[in-house]
Amino acid sequence: MTTTGRLTWKELLQRALDSNSHLKHSSFFQLSTLGLNGSPSNRTVVFRGFEDNTDRIHIQTDNRSRKVLELRNRPVAEICWYLADSWEQFRINGTVEIIDSSNPNSHRLQQRERAWYTCSLRSRMQYLGPAPGLPHLIETEHSSCQYSLDPSEGPVGTFCLLVLDPEEIDYLNLKNNSRMNFTCSKGPREEKCWTVKMINP
Amino acid sequence: MTTTGRLTWKELLQRALDSNSHLKHSSFFQLSTLGLNGSPSNRTVVFRGFEDNTDRIHIQTDNRSRKVLELRNRPVAEICWYLADSWEQFRINGTVEIIDSSNPNSHRLQQRERAWYTCSLRSRMQYLGPAPGLPHLIETEHSSCQYSLDPSEGPVGTFCLLVLDPEEIDYLNLKNNSRMNFTCSKGPREEKCWTVKMINP
Repeated sequence: MTTTGRLTWKELLQRALDSNSHLKHSSFFQLSTLGLNGSPSNRTVVFRGFEDNTDRIHIQTDNRSRKVLELRNRPVAEICWYLADSWEQFRINGTVEIIDSSNPNSHRLQQRERAWYTCSLRSRMQYLGPAPGLPHLIETEHSSCQYSLDPSEGPVGTFCLLVLDPEEIDYLNLKNNSRMNFTCSKGPREEKCWTVKMINP
Repeated sequence: MTTTGRLTWKELLQRALDSNSHLKHSSFFQLSTLGLNGSPSNRTVVFRGFEDNTDRIHIQTDNRSRKVLELRNRPVAEICWYLADSWEQFRINGTVEIIDSSNPNSHRLQQRERAWYTCSLRSRMQYLGPAPGLPHLIETEHSSCQYSLDPSEGPVGTFCLLVLDPEEIDYLNLKNNSRMNFTCSKGPREEKCWTVKMINP
């Protein structure tokens, strides 16, 4: 990743995360996708880190959620990440890979398993609940289900890892009123080559 | 607006804004649109209030920005508004009307003018700058332009009011783990009728 003498977008983002780390919600960003009805769709999700030594971004979700349906239909998304204390915004556009239990790639399945074990038990329990977005049935004393989960048990079927592969980044710094556009092309060995230009804020 | 005994979504939002008003960025939300290249587009914008006695949401922007191009092409958007202190999220989907100086409706032009005068002088000056998103030219001492603006002067040509007319709201409360879906239909006199249902978070 080269940015001709300046920080890369990933270094800018890591610096921003450091300087906003006292804000509990600094790891939250908004992920927009294409709705099945042709309208945009937008929701808050949690940053689960970069994939080892890459700039790919991990997100966890329930494979019964609408975003997974939308991403199966059109695997493209844009993250909007506003860091409230440093007044920085990262818009990260890219393609999204969906890794659920049916993934044929054993390395991908291992990543999914590792992601599962990094979750708190409370987070894992959510994947055992009723399907998100469906009508909520009031549970009576008799019908209420009690879920239980062995902490050593691997990922349940609904647990899904999303991997966003960034292709374009729009970085805005409201403190010094500067804005940069990072775009990606592929080098001779299929490696990512980034170029950056200053654009008007 | 009826929600059968519960708070309306607008009342929920106003309550959330009150309880988060100590956060400077509580009036910021993410607006997603459909990119011209078929990919989603997502950026942070500022809530400029509701239109008088309605649930329509005002946003201000530069008519040279990419979002305006995208909205001219497809006038649909989804707001994702996360209120960090109360752990509430509002996803507000609707159509967007673009009100610039060429708008044929005199009432709309008045609204645009009123919106302009509610802006700080500093905000107004931004509309005199170079086109957002274009390559940034380093200004030399000789070429640098000094903009000046008479505070009594009406809206400049690049000032644009966006009016989002909500049609569906997804409300999530992470503190009590509840979620509601509000949908809108038109009544006999074209008035909006809202229905709400509890859905699984």
